[in-house]
Amino acid sequence: MSYSFGKNFKVTLFGQSHSSGIGLVIDGIEAGYKINRDLIAKNLDRRRPGRNEFSSPRKEEDSYELVSGEVEDITCGAPLCAIIKNKDQRSKDYDNLRDMPRPSHADYPAYVKFASYNDVRGGGQFSGRMTAPLVIGGSIAEDLLMKRGIKIYSRIKSIGLAEDCEINLDDIKEENFYDFKDQVFPVINPSSREKMEAEILKAKEEGDSIGGIVETFVLNMPVGIGEPFFDSLESVISHAVFSVPGIKGIEFGSGFEAAKMLGSTHNDSYYYENNKIKTSTNNHGGIIGGLSSGMPIVFRTAVKPTSSIAKIQDTVSLKEKNNTKLEIVGRHDTSIVPRALVAIEMITAITLLDLVMEGER
Amino acid sequence: MSYSFGKNFKVTLFGQSHSSGIGLVIDGIEAGYKINRDLIAKNLDRRRPGRNEFSSPRKEEDSYELVSGEVEDITCGAPLCAIIKNKDQRSKDYDNLRDMPRPSHADYPAYVKFASYNDVRGGGQFSGRMTAPLVIGGSIAEDLLMKRGIKIYSRIKSIGLAEDCEINLDDIKEENFYDFKDQVFPVINPSSREKMEAEILKAKEEGDSIGGIVETFVLNMPVGIGEPFFDSLESVISHAVFSVPGIKGIEFGSGFEAAKMLGSTHNDSYYYENNKIKTSTNNHGGIIGGLSSGMPIVFRTAVKPTSSIAKIQDTVSLKEKNNTKLEIVGRHDTSIVPRALVAIEMITAITLLDLVMEGER
Amino acid sequence: MSYSFGKNFKVTLFGQSHSSGIGLVIDGIEAGYKINRDLIAKNLDRRRPGRNEFSSPRKEEDSYELVSGEVEDITCGAPLCAIIKNKDQRSKDYDNLRDMPRPSHADYPAYVKFASYNDVRGGGQFSGRMTAPLVIGGSIAEDLLMKRGIKIYSRIKSIGLAEDCEINLDDIKEENFYDFKDQVFPVINPSSREKMEAEILKAKEEGDSIGGIVETFVLNMPVGIGEPFFDSLESVISHAVFSVPGIKGIEFGSGFEAAKMLGSTHNDSYYYENNKIKTSTNNHGGIIGGLSSGMPIVFRTAVKPTSSIAKIQDTVSLKEKNNTKLEIVGRHDTSIVPRALVAIEMITAITLLDLVMEGER
Amino acid sequence: MSYSFGKNFKVTLFGQSHSSGIGLVIDGIEAGYKINRDLIAKNLDRRRPGRNEFSSPRKEEDSYELVSGEVEDITCGAPLCAIIKNKDQRSKDYDNLRDMPRPSHADYPAYVKFASYNDVRGGGQFSGRMTAPLVIGGSIAEDLLMKRGIKIYSRIKSIGLAEDCEINLDDIKEENFYDFKDQVFPVINPSSREKMEAEILKAKEEGDSIGGIVETFVLNMPVGIGEPFFDSLESVISHAVFSVPGIKGIEFGSGFEAAKMLGSTHNDSYYYENNKIKTSTNNHGGIIGGLSSGMPIVFRTAVKPTSSIAKIQDTVSLKEKNNTKLEIVGRHDTSIVPRALVAIEMITAITLLDLVMEGER
Repeated sequence: MSYSFGKNFKVTLFGQSHSSGIGLVIDGIEAGYKINRDLIAKNLDRRRPGRNEFSSPRKEEDSYELVSGEVEDITCGAPLCAIIKNKDQRSKDYDNLRDMPRPSHADYPAYVKFASYNDVRGGGQFSGRMTAPLVIGGSIAEDLLMKRGIKIYSRIKSIGLAEDCEINLDDIKEENFYDFKDQVFPVINPSSREKMEAEILKAKEEGDSIGGIVETFVLNMPVGIGEPFFDSLESVISHAVFSVPGIKGIEFGSGFEAAKMLGSTHNDSYYYENNKIKTSTNNHGGIIGGLSSGMPIVFRTAVKPTSSIAKIQDTVSLKEKNNTKLEIVGRHDTSIVPRALVAIEMITAITLLDLVMEGER
Repeated sequence: MSYSFGKNFKVTLFGQSHSSGIGLVIDGIEAGYKINRDLIAKNLDRRRPGRNEFSSPRKEEDSYELVSGEVEDITCGAPLCAIIKNKDQRSKDYDNLRDMPRPSHADYPAYVKFASYNDVRGGGQFSGRMTAPLVIGGSIAEDLLMKRGIKIYSRIKSIGLAEDCEINLDDIKEENFYDFKDQVFPVINPSSREKMEAEILKAKEEGDSIGGIVETFVLNMPVGIGEPFFDSLESVISHAVFSVPGIKGIEFGSGFEAAKMLGSTHNDSYYYENNKIKTSTNNHGGIIGGLSSGMPIVFRTAVKPTSSIAKIQDTVSLKEKNNTKLEIVGRHDTSIVPRALVAIEMITAITLLDLVMEGER
Repeated sequence: MSYSFGKNFKVTLFGQSHSSGIGLVIDGIEAGYKINRDLIAKNLDRRRPGRNEFSSPRKEEDSYELVSGEVEDITCGAPLCAIIKNKDQRSKDYDNLRDMPRPSHADYPAYVKFASYNDVRGGGQFSGRMTAPLVIGGSIAEDLLMKRGIKIYSRIKSIGLAEDCEINLDDIKEENFYDFKDQVFPVINPSSREKMEAEILKAKEEGDSIGGIVETFVLNMPVGIGEPFFDSLESVISHAVFSVPGIKGIEFGSGFEAAKMLGSTHNDSYYYENNKIKTSTNNHGGIIGGLSSGMPIVFRTAVKPTSSIAKIQDTVSLKEKNNTKLEIVGRHDTSIVPRALVAIEMITAITLLDLVMEGER
Repeated sequence: MSYSFGKNFKVTLFGQSHSSGIGLVIDGIEAGYKINRDLIAKNLDRRRPGRNEFSSPRKEEDSYELVSGEVEDITCGAPLCAIIKNKDQRSKDYDNLRDMPRPSHADYPAYVKFASYNDVRGGGQFSGRMTAPLVIGGSIAEDLLMKRGIKIYSRIKSIGLAEDCEINLDDIKEENFYDFKDQVFPVINPSSREKMEAEILKAKEEGDSIGGIVETFVLNMPVGIGEPFFDSLESVISHAVFSVPGIKGIEFGSGFEAAKMLGSTHNDSYYYENNKIKTSTNNHGGIIGGLSSGMPIVFRTAVKPTSSIAKIQDTVSLKEKNNTKLEIVGRHDTSIVPRALVAIEMITAITLLDLVMEGER
């Protein structure tokens, strides 16, 4: 069991896709913080299904209630609990799936783990819907990071074979990201957007789905954040990011390219600029020895194609113990990349705030 | 701070590269377990520096003492503490480095984090030497996993541009790995070994270093191991693996390739074979929804080139607050990939045992 | 911050006395458990205010909602969240108290700790009302303990100077407790009840309050439960019990009497009875070396008189920084002992289940 | 398992009475702290066996080694590991005890818990010797608390029936304690010392042992330390204190006397004195609502008579499964109260520092 994460800004998650509600408890918010409802609303809206033609038509208002932890939106030092009621459930869609595990969904291992008592409705506790309450916690964390000057942006680096342009990791300017929080497909080169949409549309028309890569940038991190030995920045960020359903890989800075490089090329030299220490390149992605270096943190996350596809697939019948065919009905995103991007940003915010608070002690 | 890891097989690490000793405490070993000293010795030998011409000539016998937790090598239910004395230290080598942070080493952020009190001798707490005691804990974990039938193997997939052959992830046979624990360069195709050695020698001659990729396989995992939401198998493995110094990326199964794929290609169909459920492909790398599927777990880890190189590098003087040049003397591996491989296996063993024990409750 | 407790049956609490709701999240309930709604209802009823003439007339139905973690009352392996809506709040009663800390209430240190942002309404997060959701978690724990044969009973040992009879700790019979769960004043000698009620009535008539002692018995504990060094049974039980508002002392077995005794009198000899090992006396209270011995666990808890009294008291004005007088209005229990008894039982059940699960691994 | 304690100043203990060494790891000491070796030596000396005629003649120098975490006695930010070698073991003394559990020792439940693999030599992991390394951690914590002005003193309140004088809890002056750290029997009234020594000598002559009460005072605590809900000051202190072998009860402030009192007597009124808020009485013992009030913290701990006595006792043979007689040879304290006092102070220091650090965040 582990529905809790963090040591200083500690999040406990609860809910299933089709339980009556879904929410989280946050322990560790300082008393006297004015909750930024606008930011929560904006981020919930960014993650919301049904936001464009490529995502699931399931409509959830995602209106939430703050059950505890505040008095008139000012935190009081008690844990904050937020709940989103689940409304637009169509549980019948999933009734025939109890017996036939969907390929690349958690159905089969969850069936074994929970001795057949797992909640199969809408994916239960394994649903992408679990990231909705994380947006509430993530928005609060993002707001508290911004009060410290720290900002998080992400772009879609690729959808299938459609890629956005390269970016110079040691010269990242915040102005490049000015519209990222407003775009479904935040990219550096606006023409990449059409290519990505084309990839998704093509997959959708074929009843298929498609993957992609999200690239995340953290600006203005103070130097020395991260905790040796086991809580290096990469350790804790990757731990958090792999909690988001559908992630298959993560790399920091030069990442897998580093494996092909020589030390003399990969090493990032130090120099002084305006009395501040910088590195001339940023292959280390803002993290050295597990600690922040003061350079922008950069990491890329591989998002797999949505597991639910309209095509008929091979699977087994758990009761009959034989091979069979499965057709998945119901509503699904052709690509979860745009929504996974928001979940990655939110869980990164939670993680970084936790480590920044640890460093401030 | 976080020198502890795990909930059921809990490891607490201590030491610095040049402290009088370095070791770990393990809480959670069952009473009555006969410690496998041969396996510990073998794995310490695999990780040991000075093992071949490509690694650091620093010679450490790595003889260890079991301070507590056992009576005549049988565990008694109390925490096991193991200590390795540090012997072959040459602290003088590092004296001139207190002022000039080495590029891509932890020196600079550690200087900031610990207000200049960090131990700079040999990298202090950021040294790769910290993985030596992990080998003791990892060997015990590996032994306890093997008693459950679970086995871990790793190969070097690439050194620089020299790559071993491709491998079919859904048809991994243990016999392919028969000599892996005896080889400095465990590979599937023996001819890859020469190419890798050539890459390293070339870098060594130029006073340079080189990176590579390690690929790890876990066989015979039971179905359903891993803990939603935050302790997915990928989350916890990546958390552990990024603790090993020099790791820049990790991917599971198809990994970053998944980002280019369609769902119909990426999904792994189920079928029955001899009354056992398998998948026809293994793009999921043995993990679905954060849980083990019963298929082999497969992940790849990107190891950066050794940060210490013989070439003169640009850096800064922290006292003078200006730019300067640095020449690193001392003994260093041209490529840490062969030794990182052992550290990755060991920390993976610790992590998997912890989650397997959680699943057994 | 610490609103979470337990490692295997992990409870996270949230809410304030006058927040919109109050509840808890439980992580670690096995899948397939049928929730015992009757037991929850019975225990909520036992703890409920307004149950008799001696307790606060605040009326709360304490109807709760299970937000997650189950499907048709069968647990599914996801965390269970339960919420009780706060209904009968009279926030106006407390408005004049923001400035004048009530003697022996948390008001003053909470004002300092939370920089004046603490929720003062009804005691906020320090209210005895926080124990209501614990009853839901405690009832589930009690039910899961009963499935293992383990039972928890408590009596009121004293109210003020009115004491129930002595009891032989090494010969505790479950039949003595047959009506304990139905009584507001569970006692061994029924005539003690009148004396206790008289003590409370006398205090009530004088606008005063009164304390007492609760004695708790745990029957049928397996041998060897408890975790050395830091999680001895006494350590973990006392940790939990002191979380209940109003507790000032705890003692196990002979307790403070042991300090006056000789070892030859205090030591409990072993003997075999029907092939089972027992002790001839039970000064150890069922716990030796922090581990359960198989004998009944016995501990006593000192409950202070209710802090809210009708009499005018001396206090300070935090704004004016001078001494002043305070009259507390509002509804309060003359003695919280009968309701604290239920909270102690419930939090003991949570604690013991957690340790029993640890022992079963 | 739980050999770790604390969240900010985290202690991990290891060792058994007769393992080759015994020690602890501390994670969370700030870098740049100069280790106070004199204070460690003084406290080790206070706890040392063989210090007077009433304690065990086992002689241990208790010389310790700092294995890691410092460079020339200045902490460097890495975990500090300290080890005490066990020297004067007489393991043969205990050989005949493997079969016959000693009354009121952990032998029998440990035998069951660890399936007969527990280390019986000298009490193994249940030995009072486990508190020796705690003295090293406790001295560091005490020193770091003193840098914040916080001081901890303890007296022996009683040995058997010999009691020290009463003390006014709301008017505690540090000068009363001026010689407490130098006395084996720290008491307010020096004449109490003789009476206590007489109690112990009488017990010793009869081959018996005797219990007592320790009273601990914490001066100059800042207001608002403690963490609701589960980590109240009482919760965490009691958790720690019950880890010390032989403790049977704890009470704060008025403690069990509170159970007999009326609220109007028990409540502690606030008043201003020199612009500081105080209470006119201190029945709350410096803790209200689980938080420090700024008044002296006061708690009393009941220590049972030493379990090892020279008299022949009844017990069972685990192999023969019948009743038998046992004679304990070996060296033992007639009363562990004077040494338990030091252990209580040390573990209290660790606990308070941890909570103070939490409050400083």
